Amino acid sequence: MSDMTTTEHLHLDPDRLFPADPRTRDIARELFSEVANLAILSPHGHVPAEWIADDEPFADPTSLLLSPDHYVTRLLHASGVDLAQLGVGGTAADPREAWRIFCARWGLFTGTASAGWLEHVFSHVFAVSEVPSAATADIIYDRISRSLATPEFRPRALFERFRIEALATTDDPLDDLDAHRRISADPTFRGRVLPTFRPDKYIDPEAPGFANAVARLADQHGIAVDDYRGYITALEERRAHFVARGAVSADHGVADAYTTVLDADDAAALFRRAVRGKLSPAEAREFRGHMLVEMARMSVADGLVMTLHPGVQRNHSSVTFRDFGPDSGHDIPVRVEFTRGLRPLLERHGLERDFHLVLFTIDETAYSREIAPLAGFYPSVFIGAPWWFLDAPDAIGRFRAAVTETAGFSRGSGFIDDTRAFLSIPARHDVARRSEAAFLARYVAEGRISLARAREIIVDLVDRQPREVFKL
Amino acid sequence: MSDMTTTEHLHLDPDRLFPADPRTRDIARELFSEVANLAILSPHGHVPAEWIADDEPFADPTSLLLSPDHYVTRLLHASGVDLAQLGVGGTAADPREAWRIFCARWGLFTGTASAGWLEHVFSHVFAVSEVPSAATADIIYDRISRSLATPEFRPRALFERFRIEALATTDDPLDDLDAHRRISADPTFRGRVLPTFRPDKYIDPEAPGFANAVARLADQHGIAVDDYRGYITALEERRAHFVARGAVSADHGVADAYTTVLDADDAAALFRRAVRGKLSPAEAREFRGHMLVEMARMSVADGLVMTLHPGVQRNHSSVTFRDFGPDSGHDIPVRVEFTRGLRPLLERHGLERDFHLVLFTIDETAYSREIAPLAGFYPSVFIGAPWWFLDAPDAIGRFRAAVTETAGFSRGSGFIDDTRAFLSIPARHDVARRSEAAFLARYVAEGRISLARAREIIVDLVDRQPREVFKL
Amino acid sequence: MSDMTTTEHLHLDPDRLFPADPRTRDIARELFSEVANLAILSPHGHVPAEWIADDEPFADPTSLLLSPDHYVTRLLHASGVDLAQLGVGGTAADPREAWRIFCARWGLFTGTASAGWLEHVFSHVFAVSEVPSAATADIIYDRISRSLATPEFRPRALFERFRIEALATTDDPLDDLDAHRRISADPTFRGRVLPTFRPDKYIDPEAPGFANAVARLADQHGIAVDDYRGYITALEERRAHFVARGAVSADHGVADAYTTVLDADDAAALFRRAVRGKLSPAEAREFRGHMLVEMARMSVADGLVMTLHPGVQRNHSSVTFRDFGPDSGHDIPVRVEFTRGLRPLLERHGLERDFHLVLFTIDETAYSREIAPLAGFYPSVFIGAPWWFLDAPDAIGRFRAAVTETAGFSRGSGFIDDTRAFLSIPARHDVARRSEAAFLARYVAEGRISLARAREIIVDLVDRQPREVFKL
Repeated sequence: MSDMTTTEHLHLDPDRLFPADPRTRDIARELFSEVANLAILSPHGHVPAEWIADDEPFADPTSLLLSPDHYVTRLLHASGVDLAQLGVGGTAADPREAWRIFCARWGLFTGTASAGWLEHVFSHVFAVSEVPSAATADIIYDRISRSLATPEFRPRALFERFRIEALATTDDPLDDLDAHRRISADPTFRGRVLPTFRPDKYIDPEAPGFANAVARLADQHGIAVDDYRGYITALEERRAHFVARGAVSADHGVADAYTTVLDADDAAALFRRAVRGKLSPAEAREFRGHMLVEMARMSVADGLVMTLHPGVQRNHSSVTFRDFGPDSGHDIPVRVEFTRGLRPLLERHGLERDFHLVLFTIDETAYSREIAPLAGFYPSVFIGAPWWFLDAPDAIGRFRAAVTETAGFSRGSGFIDDTRAFLSIPARHDVARRSEAAFLARYVAEGRISLARAREIIVDLVDRQPREVFKL
Repeated sequence: MSDMTTTEHLHLDPDRLFPADPRTRDIARELFSEVANLAILSPHGHVPAEWIADDEPFADPTSLLLSPDHYVTRLLHASGVDLAQLGVGGTAADPREAWRIFCARWGLFTGTASAGWLEHVFSHVFAVSEVPSAATADIIYDRISRSLATPEFRPRALFERFRIEALATTDDPLDDLDAHRRISADPTFRGRVLPTFRPDKYIDPEAPGFANAVARLADQHGIAVDDYRGYITALEERRAHFVARGAVSADHGVADAYTTVLDADDAAALFRRAVRGKLSPAEAREFRGHMLVEMARMSVADGLVMTLHPGVQRNHSSVTFRDFGPDSGHDIPVRVEFTRGLRPLLERHGLERDFHLVLFTIDETAYSREIAPLAGFYPSVFIGAPWWFLDAPDAIGRFRAAVTETAGFSRGSGFIDDTRAFLSIPARHDVARRSEAAFLARYVAEGRISLARAREIIVDLVDRQPREVFKL
Repeated sequence: MSDMTTTEHLHLDPDRLFPADPRTRDIARELFSEVANLAILSPHGHVPAEWIADDEPFADPTSLLLSPDHYVTRLLHASGVDLAQLGVGGTAADPREAWRIFCARWGLFTGTASAGWLEHVFSHVFAVSEVPSAATADIIYDRISRSLATPEFRPRALFERFRIEALATTDDPLDDLDAHRRISADPTFRGRVLPTFRPDKYIDPEAPGFANAVARLADQHGIAVDDYRGYITALEERRAHFVARGAVSADHGVADAYTTVLDADDAAALFRRAVRGKLSPAEAREFRGHMLVEMARMSVADGLVMTLHPGVQRNHSSVTFRDFGPDSGHDIPVRVEFTRGLRPLLERHGLERDFHLVLFTIDETAYSREIAPLAGFYPSVFIGAPWWFLDAPDAIGRFRAAVTETAGFSRGSGFIDDTRAFLSIPARHDVARRSEAAFLARYVAEGRISLARAREIIVDLVDRQPREVFKL
């Protein structure tokens, strides 16, 4: 692993991510200026609502910016660093030592999405002017630490400084959503913080903790643990609770996009065996596929936007999972299929008024082949913004090129930052807006669309689209 | 859905689709000028031969340009428009009202292939100078209506104005091809209109109408409906009829590229059960795979080029299919596999002299992985031009980049417009020629090929390749 | 097939493969100059060690440059040339006649990787100044023939002229590696020529010649042919022999990346039946998957880097295989899957110190979806350079764009020429270095990384990475 020996000033090019060709770059700059300062809409992400509700100061640079960021810790791990040295998964690590390791290996991140986001955070949020390195690690650590101790760096202050208008969290169906209640009840804070219903472990018999989750649900609702109709009603009631607390969407992280419609008796029979852990993998898939259609049915009824995130093999390394828990950097994508898998769901609900189904993928091959064609026909289907490993400038460009010629610009979800790295939210939206400007600028430069039309579109993508698709 | 509020002049940039870099653009312009005015060869498409034979005036803008264009109606549908309002599938819709809906939502198409084609049709065919919008819908409708009433806009006049040299239609094997006969018998019309043998529903037991189609074939040929040898002979005779009427190719729209060789007794046994609707899906696939090899065998014998269009889930929405019929915008691609699937066919016929097999795909992943390697070895295999959703400038560029480094420029089919939108044929060839010029210009600018060689190649791609591959 | 009629001077643009945009091109030129003259490290390829050991003059242009180059002969075959006319697979062909056929069809290669390599060989190695054509075939043939007769064109002289520092061959496990011994024992030659352990036909029951290979292994080691433990020990001993002769890696060309862990008794039972040819395809896959994990275990023990080349359907055309043998141009890629397939291997050895597993693919879809995410977490996993059909400028650019945003620049293998075309090695490294420069220049021009950092990275990619990953 080569360490970066050059000592350079941390400098963010004001024209970064714009195409090199001078005329195209001028157009991109102009388009970006239309949206650079628009409020941030973040309809799907993982920031804890408690941060905003409690408004406590962040503890230190490492626990805020390093330990929980699996984009960063995974690449350090690949280079030979023990995750325990980085405080991953709650392991006890010396924060300053962890930070030194990170800065000494900063060169690993050159060219990655994370480097761009972190440079933006360092430079724009903390006014750090040093490029991270072994030599500058302590300087940067101390600068950030001092900032975090000031009121200007408390969560709510940053929320406002970042011009966030709405921020969705991701929540367990049994969460009482008290943090959300406190935030919306507080007249001194104007930002919207919306819960999101995330029922994976309540509807997927193969999800870790399924039996326990269903048992708690049954317990809370006073029903027998294997009462399928009671279970369905309980899920509906939990969704109603989320709607009452301001939720606009329900999110589904599933192994694949397989759906199926079972009759209620068959579903009930599977459910009774599922809560006892008796389903074969094929039966579990049937039940999960059925429950996705049930979730769609409930979305039609209660209006929650349904977002689908399929196709990841979670916790690829069992040893790492045992030692550091989930989200520790070894979730690996797999191929995914939508056309056949979603057909039963779409046959039943695809033409419903006001049903919104947003499809995300880490398998880029699905963009032009399946997702754009589906969203180009079904009024309910929207093309999710590039997700996870694909949430980076080149990948955003490939995404846009893959879907636009089939589905135009109108069928997308708007940008989704999908992050728990609260401080990087402006950086991520900045990268997305610049990437959209770069793409549109090329179409203008190639005479495919007018500059006037491109101006309209970029505002649409950044502002109107997330509002409409997520019913904000 | 954002409506385009700017009133702009409809303006086609003469340098549209050329790269932004000035030097590369100059090269592209120069290369395009080599082929801009060459005659159009259209060896695969869906224009009805009756249009040319009868030469009746087109009825109105909507039934000509909107209702049958599923690229357009699908995106309107996705935006919330009822297909019945657009006259899809023969539904009764007020043409002017449908047109207004379309124009009011013109902004949906920004960036799509359809927008480029339609702007070309409006501007170059009808001299429309307004950008479509709610405000301009009637103006444009009236302009086009007036034009359509004049002799200059009858099919044959347009055929000549478009400089079409040869146009292939797509026809049912039992079609008597009388329209084709009338066209070729008419000394006053010099264009070639060639039938294409499209036997899907006669050879695929899972195609809608299979049993009925086979029954009609048997009836016409005086054989028992379950007589396999008679059935094979009847298909050969129908192909001979097509050859006699000028056909140069047989086209196969199949679920996948699976092929297999059955012995005649096994095939006959499957066939007997197929006509009674008794095949399991696996058996149907076997029979279909066998019949593809039979079609290849017949192509070797009668010289018809074999074109293969696999990998589409047709009629994804049953309700829409029921109400609006096939080709109503909800055919969705699926993953496709060629290497293993085609091996039995290629083992038997892949090295035959004068056998031409053209492979199309909507799954872009097959270009570099399977199609270019196959066409780079088998003299019989040709790389089909980008098909359907991929028939657009960026997708054409991706296609070219994906296949060229493996297979060069010599193994392609030439551009295939594959359209029933007769008026858009020049637009589609214009886009393809510009896209080829843009790709070649980059290779010249990057010092990979000489300008002189690029000039030769673009003429090859546009003119020689379709002539040779389709034996025109 | 269009012959190139223009007579042009063979001219290699000194800025070839650099982006057209002037500023980006300047940066690319500057980055390329950092590495243009660095020594060549070739840690995986197919040059016979005997060439260097014996240092005999090459026979003639055709047997050196044409007959064995299946990239070239395959495209000639696709254009209608009989492989026997080209001397493929040891067939007797007149070398000069074969050369004339090749030169007359030179236009076939425009835009291919092969054209770029061959132009470099002709121009830089042989000072040929004519573009190949029917008219220039004899001139070029004679020029090359005369050169080959001189001492300056013997293998060792070229090895030194090419500035090759280390060159790996690919060898049968039972090879005595005498040529390697002779080379390293010769004090007059300073280049390193390293053997590579390639055990496919010893560990894959479906590989042609498996039973025979295992029988020879057993015979040489004095064990019963179906003695599984003896077989494992014998493989370990053969690897030790390779290590003693300087090997740094073991290479695995497998049908897919499926791995599994069997207990020793089950493995032994399968092995006993495997040597008798009794395994079903599913059982053969199990045994092969088990043996891949065994190979990983041995790599952990003996330090040989494990390289994996899955996903090719070898010898697609049986007739061609019968007449011309393997490597005659009809190996066709298939889809490949790593995430699930490699999990058993990585569960067992993925976190081991000093285990290096390099993943290659011809299925580009795996780059961003599977390979970059795996290499971005597991310290043992490295991203193999673009392989085979993807070893070309545009494909290298797509590769770099697909992996960098996830895994940065640090997780790659360095460039792998993987060739038996000895004379093209400098050309291939030149193309790779230019392609890296072009990619990095874009990132610099787009303000994503600094020029200083790009300079460091390109040296890393070309020099440090192959040294470290392959433990040179």
